[in-house]
Amino acid sequence: MTFFASFDAVLSQDEQAIVDRARAFCAGQFAREVHTAYLEHRAFDPAMIDDWAKLGMLGLMVDKSQGGFGASFACKVRVAQEMATKSFAAAFAINNLQGTVARIARDGSDLQQRNLLPDMMTGSLLSAPAMSEPQAGSDLPAIETVATRVSGGWKLNGRKRWITNGTISGMFSVMAKVDDGNGPNGIGTFAVLDPELNQVSRTALPLPGAMNFRLADLLLDDFVLPEWAMLQPPGEGFKTSLQAINAARVHVAGMAVATLYAGLTEAVEYTSGRLAFGKPVIEQQGLSWQLAEVATRLEAAQALVIHAARSIDNMRNVVTLAAQAKVFAVETAIWGLERCLSAMGAIGATQAHRITMHLSEVRLGGFGDGTSQILTDRIGRELQKTYSSNSRQGAKT
Amino acid sequence: MTFFASFDAVLSQDEQAIVDRARAFCAGQFAREVHTAYLEHRAFDPAMIDDWAKLGMLGLMVDKSQGGFGASFACKVRVAQEMATKSFAAAFAINNLQGTVARIARDGSDLQQRNLLPDMMTGSLLSAPAMSEPQAGSDLPAIETVATRVSGGWKLNGRKRWITNGTISGMFSVMAKVDDGNGPNGIGTFAVLDPELNQVSRTALPLPGAMNFRLADLLLDDFVLPEWAMLQPPGEGFKTSLQAINAARVHVAGMAVATLYAGLTEAVEYTSGRLAFGKPVIEQQGLSWQLAEVATRLEAAQALVIHAARSIDNMRNVVTLAAQAKVFAVETAIWGLERCLSAMGAIGATQAHRITMHLSEVRLGGFGDGTSQILTDRIGRELQKTYSSNSRQGAKT
Amino acid sequence: MTFFASFDAVLSQDEQAIVDRARAFCAGQFAREVHTAYLEHRAFDPAMIDDWAKLGMLGLMVDKSQGGFGASFACKVRVAQEMATKSFAAAFAINNLQGTVARIARDGSDLQQRNLLPDMMTGSLLSAPAMSEPQAGSDLPAIETVATRVSGGWKLNGRKRWITNGTISGMFSVMAKVDDGNGPNGIGTFAVLDPELNQVSRTALPLPGAMNFRLADLLLDDFVLPEWAMLQPPGEGFKTSLQAINAARVHVAGMAVATLYAGLTEAVEYTSGRLAFGKPVIEQQGLSWQLAEVATRLEAAQALVIHAARSIDNMRNVVTLAAQAKVFAVETAIWGLERCLSAMGAIGATQAHRITMHLSEVRLGGFGDGTSQILTDRIGRELQKTYSSNSRQGAKT
Amino acid sequence: MTFFASFDAVLSQDEQAIVDRARAFCAGQFAREVHTAYLEHRAFDPAMIDDWAKLGMLGLMVDKSQGGFGASFACKVRVAQEMATKSFAAAFAINNLQGTVARIARDGSDLQQRNLLPDMMTGSLLSAPAMSEPQAGSDLPAIETVATRVSGGWKLNGRKRWITNGTISGMFSVMAKVDDGNGPNGIGTFAVLDPELNQVSRTALPLPGAMNFRLADLLLDDFVLPEWAMLQPPGEGFKTSLQAINAARVHVAGMAVATLYAGLTEAVEYTSGRLAFGKPVIEQQGLSWQLAEVATRLEAAQALVIHAARSIDNMRNVVTLAAQAKVFAVETAIWGLERCLSAMGAIGATQAHRITMHLSEVRLGGFGDGTSQILTDRIGRELQKTYSSNSRQGAKT
Repeated sequence: MTFFASFDAVLSQDEQAIVDRARAFCAGQFAREVHTAYLEHRAFDPAMIDDWAKLGMLGLMVDKSQGGFGASFACKVRVAQEMATKSFAAAFAINNLQGTVARIARDGSDLQQRNLLPDMMTGSLLSAPAMSEPQAGSDLPAIETVATRVSGGWKLNGRKRWITNGTISGMFSVMAKVDDGNGPNGIGTFAVLDPELNQVSRTALPLPGAMNFRLADLLLDDFVLPEWAMLQPPGEGFKTSLQAINAARVHVAGMAVATLYAGLTEAVEYTSGRLAFGKPVIEQQGLSWQLAEVATRLEAAQALVIHAARSIDNMRNVVTLAAQAKVFAVETAIWGLERCLSAMGAIGATQAHRITMHLSEVRLGGFGDGTSQILTDRIGRELQKTYSSNSRQGAKT
Repeated sequence: MTFFASFDAVLSQDEQAIVDRARAFCAGQFAREVHTAYLEHRAFDPAMIDDWAKLGMLGLMVDKSQGGFGASFACKVRVAQEMATKSFAAAFAINNLQGTVARIARDGSDLQQRNLLPDMMTGSLLSAPAMSEPQAGSDLPAIETVATRVSGGWKLNGRKRWITNGTISGMFSVMAKVDDGNGPNGIGTFAVLDPELNQVSRTALPLPGAMNFRLADLLLDDFVLPEWAMLQPPGEGFKTSLQAINAARVHVAGMAVATLYAGLTEAVEYTSGRLAFGKPVIEQQGLSWQLAEVATRLEAAQALVIHAARSIDNMRNVVTLAAQAKVFAVETAIWGLERCLSAMGAIGATQAHRITMHLSEVRLGGFGDGTSQILTDRIGRELQKTYSSNSRQGAKT
Repeated sequence: MTFFASFDAVLSQDEQAIVDRARAFCAGQFAREVHTAYLEHRAFDPAMIDDWAKLGMLGLMVDKSQGGFGASFACKVRVAQEMATKSFAAAFAINNLQGTVARIARDGSDLQQRNLLPDMMTGSLLSAPAMSEPQAGSDLPAIETVATRVSGGWKLNGRKRWITNGTISGMFSVMAKVDDGNGPNGIGTFAVLDPELNQVSRTALPLPGAMNFRLADLLLDDFVLPEWAMLQPPGEGFKTSLQAINAARVHVAGMAVATLYAGLTEAVEYTSGRLAFGKPVIEQQGLSWQLAEVATRLEAAQALVIHAARSIDNMRNVVTLAAQAKVFAVETAIWGLERCLSAMGAIGATQAHRITMHLSEVRLGGFGDGTSQILTDRIGRELQKTYSSNSRQGAKT
Repeated sequence: MTFFASFDAVLSQDEQAIVDRARAFCAGQFAREVHTAYLEHRAFDPAMIDDWAKLGMLGLMVDKSQGGFGASFACKVRVAQEMATKSFAAAFAINNLQGTVARIARDGSDLQQRNLLPDMMTGSLLSAPAMSEPQAGSDLPAIETVATRVSGGWKLNGRKRWITNGTISGMFSVMAKVDDGNGPNGIGTFAVLDPELNQVSRTALPLPGAMNFRLADLLLDDFVLPEWAMLQPPGEGFKTSLQAINAARVHVAGMAVATLYAGLTEAVEYTSGRLAFGKPVIEQQGLSWQLAEVATRLEAAQALVIHAARSIDNMRNVVTLAAQAKVFAVETAIWGLERCLSAMGAIGATQAHRITMHLSEVRLGGFGDGTSQILTDRIGRELQKTYSSNSRQGAKT
């Protein structure tokens, strides 16, 4: 039985077919390009995104009636896992493009859907969420970007940071405090289009070992946009974003698991082929136990991811669960990849292998959507709700 | 949402009702008695077993047509969790009684079912598996007990060790090498009844801090039993036992998770009430993060247990998964309980609390059905099957 | 080379001879009695203390001119290690008696030295520090016991808790807020003698698995003591106590290391003798690596203890270092003993072995003199002093 | 008190002055160059080596009578720590040059000292040990390079791998099996000079993230060298190498500790300056505890390194101790640097910081001179010698 069988078992037949197509795509040229790009300290060729879009994958969660696959969130995570076995960063970046597509398809106005959706589905319009700011990494209420009402639309001012796909996106969905004339009040989301035409300044943020994220900063200086470009009004926008962030955390967790799976597979294959003291390294019992411990925690992380992904689909309140899945998966991945590399020795760090790439990308990607510290703090604040005799008695009613 | 909600969600309505009854039972006199017994260095009152049997719980997995509840294995694990929140050892011991009941109900001959089942269901006949031997802890093929064919039945010789409920059981299902006259050949299981009448020598094996297991040794010296007492013939017996041991491992894993849940609840409640430096201890962020980390790994362990329990029900091959669930759950429980105790300080070790009892019992119970070392070795030997590019490709076909 | 050789190497010849005598004493009847007491849920025979006193060990750090051995603090820790290999709790309790002896010999008034020292040196007067209170575990300024000036002396009121040797001591050195008539002002230390004669109420505090500490509570209700019974005036008393607590932390660290040494020795010896799958268990590489990791961290802990003990002798400021030594040694001991027990299997938990005793006693003793949380917090507050570029530059001047 | 004070305290005044000079050197242009080189995926400017040589540092352990500093091994480790706070790899590479200098100064023939020492001391001749081979990473007896006796000297054939400074060295001290005409017999060391002139083929081995090691492979194809170029004859050569490897392990351990010190300093400084939720991040208690735990293990690792370094100087048998120091220091460094990076968030991975460089270099350097697996195995094999009752009794005699 393969590692992913337990996840596949919770998907529909249709979804499993999508996973198969994703696997075939990722195993091909994509696998080589993302690694080559990493070794050459550049981001992977954006043509990969076009090819992926051609498979219809950007509309994975878009309803079938709108031309999408109508897949579940669990399916989305599973597909992202296939990609993350090749590169966590590329998977993170490419799958990040889907979020706004799905949201506009579901909640967008007719005008928004007409103006944006077709290009977004084909990948000719790439859209990147822009939330973090220099002084507000994980603290959403602290953002300082402001959208002020002007005649016929809105004017945006502020700085955005750590924007995935920031160097190539043609659209940003920017979170900003909304000022209707009475001072900032609530957080909304706005579509910033044609940034170059409109003299929006974007700056690549080159992160060594993590170029596949294509991080960039954005400077909005009196950027004016039309009325229809408000993707989400205050209140609702903030709430939807909080829900979306739970999903994003589970998504990251799933990709971290897949990356560790890939690393463990490399370590097992290499140590199966390499001899030391007359037998395959993996038959050294001490080393075998070290990798067995990785496999065990990996299985636990995957079980937690599957559970969390299904909870998202079932609309359960998953704030704590999503936080736990992300913390556990990311920390398990880092710990496990270090151990896989240790098992392979210096060879594991040569260009022939991906473990150091995996480590570098997972570690960086793990900071997104809430650091382990922020999430642990959140989990800690909920302890009294879940772990008390009273909470148990309540359970029966 | 309570901690156990995710497990309850995979049970039927009927099964949830059984869980509710189990919870009510365990929360009553049972909870006090198992702790008092621990503090007094004795085993809990066997009357508890009678009361539990009266609820029909010894026939939990017995078919409804035979008077049982017809519950799934997942339900059995969930019920055991309720009990394990009060005492891992008592839960381990009481649930251990069910195994032979279910097996005889399912596979036993008419004669066996007629002779044994009624008394086993009511708890007036308690049955304990007897597998381990002084020189064969986890190494089944190494057992030395032999069943030799004699006129009209079998003659057993050998020593058995670490028998749970060994001091009070009226029957032992003994694994032995079967000698049909041509030397030992294959392993079968035999019902050893009325041990006292038959001068079987049993010796209590008092384990400090773990008396609730009621461990005993058994000496079989030319013990003769009738033909019908062979519960399982060689070959099949061995195979069924291997399957049973996978279930037993998941069962232990489930109870370990529940025990840690109980410990975390005690730690959260105590640190919520205790003040230090002017606020509840649990609001010290450092301590909160320590307990949050326990909660996170606990959630991962529970997800893994649920996944493994359902896989047992679905007859999937779960050798590795069961081993992983047990290793992960037991080690997480020990680590987590140590941390909970650390958070409570010396007060946590007084008679008012159960954490030291939990630690003592989980640790001991964790040795049953394969130590962490044996299981890790097993997991290690399977690595090449699961973690290789070939295994992935195979998955598609 | 033996494990303790590196510590012995920093002691004088005379001190090494003291260590040899301590080892011979501890290896004899003492070793059996402390374990038997543990198994029987009672404290060890106080006659052991008399025998130890006859060796002169209660005056270990008392100046030779006053009849002591004039040993260094490092020697005291090393001696305590010999005893802790047999029982952490007994070592903690017996060595706890020395503290007040050494302090009175060094700082006591003539009257105090005349009245107390001779009996303290022979062990006919046992003295226990009494610092903790129900609401002030580790928070010294929060103590509520008050010493009020009365004609000819002082009157004490308050409750003390967790007093080691509390059930048998004939004297308590009680820390109290001093009220000279103008309200409590500073913390001093007072000798409370003949508690029974003076109707001081003491209550045994039985801690399961930790009876060898002989913990008790003390209730002081208008207890009057003479002028000379003030052992340390406010200000100085508090400061000396803070210094003493650093030493106490290193002392606990040293004993924790020794206890783990003992546990590892038991595990290595047992697994060397026990066969599995045809060879000694310790030759299973996986298990060998697990124990090797214990040995490695144990060596690191011992190096840190030796370093900290010598720093105490050299009067270096060791607040952070003492905290680090205690946290690291206690946590390493608990982790390592769990692993040793795991390596031994269920046999390790039988009465023939001491690992569960070691675990129980180290864990409890580890709460003394500042929990890991209190110490970690303290270490955290000092980070900016030690870890900054400025601190390095300052080092050169 | 600064972190390094405890190490400085065991050095002589003269040695402390050397450390001061090293610190000044490393804090200057060197610090910038090694980091810039890392970011530019190249090795640091070799001119740094010339400058270092001008300070006389290549003769650190060479006797004063021969123009060196006559420093202890402990001093060498301490000096390497200063350099490793800037770059583990550069420190590893530069200090690696010293080894052959010191050995030839101590053990070399007159001819060798005359021919080689002056240029080696000034750095105009750089020498690199060449031990590992493609099929013999840590398994010295398995090397296949052979030195065959020819008229007037020796002929070398074989491949060497993972040679630090391999791309720039003018000399290699090559370990080879010696064949006097009767087949290979024992391992000796040979000076391979002027590789380019002599058509020795060397190939750079570019390791992403670890270019500062300047790794290269070497192909010796009938390379002929004169009689005097045998640096160590068989038997002795092998033994000396084993001794040298113990020192090398402690050396790596010391540098790993220093690298973690540097990382912790960066993390403390950054989190002291960065605000979150209204106060410096480091004042978030949860995060403070996480870094406090790093500081604690770091202190333990340093204590172990100091102890091991002094044991080397005292010619104690330190096989196990050196292995433990390396395993503990390297694993603590990797674990601690991951945690420091986690505390800093994504900013820590930008070009402004060195944590990812430290991680990359320590991890790679940690494979040198015996992987953690090899060392743990070695430690495991010695357990029965150190941890048994017999070993203690033997200690007294």
